Amino acid sequence: MTTEDQNQLERYKLRISERIATSIGYPFAIDFNYEELYSMLGYHLNNVGDPYIESNYDGNTHEMEREVIDFFGDLFSAPRENRWGYVTNGGSEGNLYGLYVARELYPQGMVYYSESTHYSAQKNVHLLNMPSIVIRATEGGEMDYDDLRASVQLHRNRPAIILANIGTTMTEAKDSVSTIRQILKELAITSSYIHCDAALAGTYLALLDDNAPFNFKNGADSIACSGHKFIGTPIPCGIIIVRKNYKDRIGRPVPYIGSLDSTISGSRSGHAALFLWYAIKKMGKEGLLMRAKKSLDLAHYAEQKLNGLGIPATRNVNAMTVVIPQPSEQICQKWQLATDNGHSHFICMPGITKNTIDNFIEELSRDFKYGVLPAKQQNVKA
Amino acid sequence: MTTEDQNQLERYKLRISERIATSIGYPFAIDFNYEELYSMLGYHLNNVGDPYIESNYDGNTHEMEREVIDFFGDLFSAPRENRWGYVTNGGSEGNLYGLYVARELYPQGMVYYSESTHYSAQKNVHLLNMPSIVIRATEGGEMDYDDLRASVQLHRNRPAIILANIGTTMTEAKDSVSTIRQILKELAITSSYIHCDAALAGTYLALLDDNAPFNFKNGADSIACSGHKFIGTPIPCGIIIVRKNYKDRIGRPVPYIGSLDSTISGSRSGHAALFLWYAIKKMGKEGLLMRAKKSLDLAHYAEQKLNGLGIPATRNVNAMTVVIPQPSEQICQKWQLATDNGHSHFICMPGITKNTIDNFIEELSRDFKYGVLPAKQQNVKA
Repeated sequence: MTTEDQNQLERYKLRISERIATSIGYPFAIDFNYEELYSMLGYHLNNVGDPYIESNYDGNTHEMEREVIDFFGDLFSAPRENRWGYVTNGGSEGNLYGLYVARELYPQGMVYYSESTHYSAQKNVHLLNMPSIVIRATEGGEMDYDDLRASVQLHRNRPAIILANIGTTMTEAKDSVSTIRQILKELAITSSYIHCDAALAGTYLALLDDNAPFNFKNGADSIACSGHKFIGTPIPCGIIIVRKNYKDRIGRPVPYIGSLDSTISGSRSGHAALFLWYAIKKMGKEGLLMRAKKSLDLAHYAEQKLNGLGIPATRNVNAMTVVIPQPSEQICQKWQLATDNGHSHFICMPGITKNTIDNFIEELSRDFKYGVLPAKQQNVKA
Repeated sequence: MTTEDQNQLERYKLRISERIATSIGYPFAIDFNYEELYSMLGYHLNNVGDPYIESNYDGNTHEMEREVIDFFGDLFSAPRENRWGYVTNGGSEGNLYGLYVARELYPQGMVYYSESTHYSAQKNVHLLNMPSIVIRATEGGEMDYDDLRASVQLHRNRPAIILANIGTTMTEAKDSVSTIRQILKELAITSSYIHCDAALAGTYLALLDDNAPFNFKNGADSIACSGHKFIGTPIPCGIIIVRKNYKDRIGRPVPYIGSLDSTISGSRSGHAALFLWYAIKKMGKEGLLMRAKKSLDLAHYAEQKLNGLGIPATRNVNAMTVVIPQPSEQICQKWQLATDNGHSHFICMPGITKNTIDNFIEELSRDFKYGVLPAKQQNVKA
C-alpha cells in the first residue's frame, strides 16, 4: 500500500467521523457497538442456503439467524407453526422476496402500492415482471383507500397483491392493513396477498403495540424490515418473515450445498445475522422499547420546538421522522437531509442526541430567519 | 445478555475457529486481515445509489468503490469510456444484474446456459421471468457447443442471451466466449448478449492472462465476480462490470437520495467496497498474481499426489478445484466437501496450506484404502 493510499484511507476515516456528527437525514441508528464480535471478522461467515436446514457447509450463523427470525416472528405475531424467514441484505431484498412469493402464489396477480412507496418497489415489480397500479396517497403519505377501492374494483378478475407501507420514506406514514383487508372483503376478492414494507418503523411499532395493526394476525402475509435502521448495524441488513406454506412454493434442493435454495441471495452474510442476534440479546425487548421511546420523545420535542419558532414541522403518529419545508442547500448538505418535492426531513434515530437536534434547529432557525434561498432540487440525469 | 447467551457466543466462536481449519470444500480465501479497518465498523457505511453520482448522502465509500470497479474494469479489458459497475452483495446479485440488463436490452431474448451452471442461474432467470434453455455440458463441465448451436438454430427469431461460466461450481470448467461468439456469427444472430459468471475464477484468470478469453475485448457484455472468494472478505460481496450504454437503460432518478437507482440492492454495504479496495491496494496486482500462482501450484501438487496414490483426481486447466470420487460421509463432513452426483471437490484457496492438504490426503487415502462406505447424497426435501 503506497503512502498516498494510506493517506487517502486516513482522510476518509477522518471525514466519516466528522460527517456522522451531522447526519440526521437518513434512517440508521448510530449507537451500536459490536466490538465484542470483531474477532469473528477474521472469518468468512456465510449463511448460504435455507437457515432452517443444516447443510454440509457449517461456517455459518444459521443458529443465530433462526433466533433472530423467531424474535421478529413473535414481534409480528407470525403463526408459530407456519412461519419462515431469513436475514436479508436490506429492506429492498425483503420487499423483492415478499413480491416474489406473491407472484408465485398468484401469477395473474395485480400489484397495488401507493405513490409514497419507496423507489425500490417500482424496480422490484419491474424486475419480477408484474403488472402494477400506483395508488394516490394523502398529503400525509398514507394510501388513499378510496382510490385503492376504485382501482381494485376495476380489476376484480385478478388476484390483488398489495404492498402496504409501514412507515413511508419521506413522512413515515403507515397504511392500514385492516382497512385494506376490509376493502378486499367488500369487493369479494378471495385471492389476495398483503406484503408490508416495514423497513424503518416495523420493529418499534411492534414493540410499542403487542398487537400492531400491520402484523400477521391483522392480515399481513409477509413483512420486511431493515436491521441497520432501528437496531443499527455497520452493514446494511434486514429480515423477511413470511407464512411458511407460501414460501414453500419456491426454493429448490441444491445437492451441492445440501440445502434448499430458498432465499434470493446465494451467499449471505453470517456476520449480519450475528450482529442482529447480538443486538437483540444485548438490549432485549425492554431495552429496545426504551430506546424507541427515547427517539420518539426526541422527535416530539423537535416538532414542538420548531413549531414554537414558527417553522412549520409535521410528524405522523409514532414517527421518528419530522418533515419541514426544504431549507437552504448549505443546511441540506451539512445535515444530509433527504429532500423531495419541496420538503425535507430529519429522523431522530437512536443515538442522535438532544444536543445535536438543538444545534440543528438553531442553524435552521437562522436559515429561515435570514431568508436563505432554498436548495435546488438535485438535477439527476438518467 | 444472559450468561447462557454469552456461553452460546463463546461456544460458537470456538467452533468456527476449529471448523475453519478443515474447511476446504467451499471457495473462499482465508488469509485476509482487515484489522486496520475495524475502527470503521463503528459506522454504518451505506453505498446507496449509483457509485458514479455523488448523492446528498455521503456516509459511503463510493470513492473506493469506483477504484475497485476500475481495477476490475482494467483487469477485464472493459472499454474505458464505456464501462460501469458496482460492488454487489455477491456473485448471485451480479448474475441477476447481468441478466436484468440483457432482458431490458432484449425483452424477447432467449437465455441459454449449460447444465453445469450455478444453481442461482435458474432462480435468476425465473425471477426475471425470462424464457431459457439449458444446454448440455461435457463431462469436464464445459458447455457442449454443438448443443448450443443446435438450440440457437431453432430459435433464430429471438435475440440470444448467453450465460457463460468462467469456472463452474463443481469442476471449475470454463466456457469459451470466443467459440460462443463464433457460433452466434455463423447463425447470423445480430442481437445477442453474453454475460460471464466469473464468480470464482475471474480475478485470477485475468491476472494470469492480460487478454483473458472471457474479457470484454473477446466478447463479454457483462462480467460478475465474487469478492469473498479469491480476494477474501468476512462478508459476501462481489462486483459487476457492464458496458455503460447497456446499463443506461435501467436506473431512474431518485430525488430522495439525489442519485440514480441503478443497482439491484438499495442500501449497499460501504464496508464491502472498503474491504475490496484495501485488499487490492495492500496486495497490488503483483501480490494477487503471486497468491494465485501459489494456490494453483498447490492444486497441481494435490492432484499429482492423489493420482500417485491411486485416487483418481481431476482438475481443469488453471483450476484451484480438484475433483475426486465422493469419499465417506465422515470425510465429507469434517472437510466440508461440496458433493454432487457421486463426486466431491476441494479447492486450494489462498490461505489453505500444503500441510492442510497433506493431512486431508492422508485421511482420504486411509478412507479409500479401508473401503469406508461413501456418504449418502444428502436427502433434501422441498
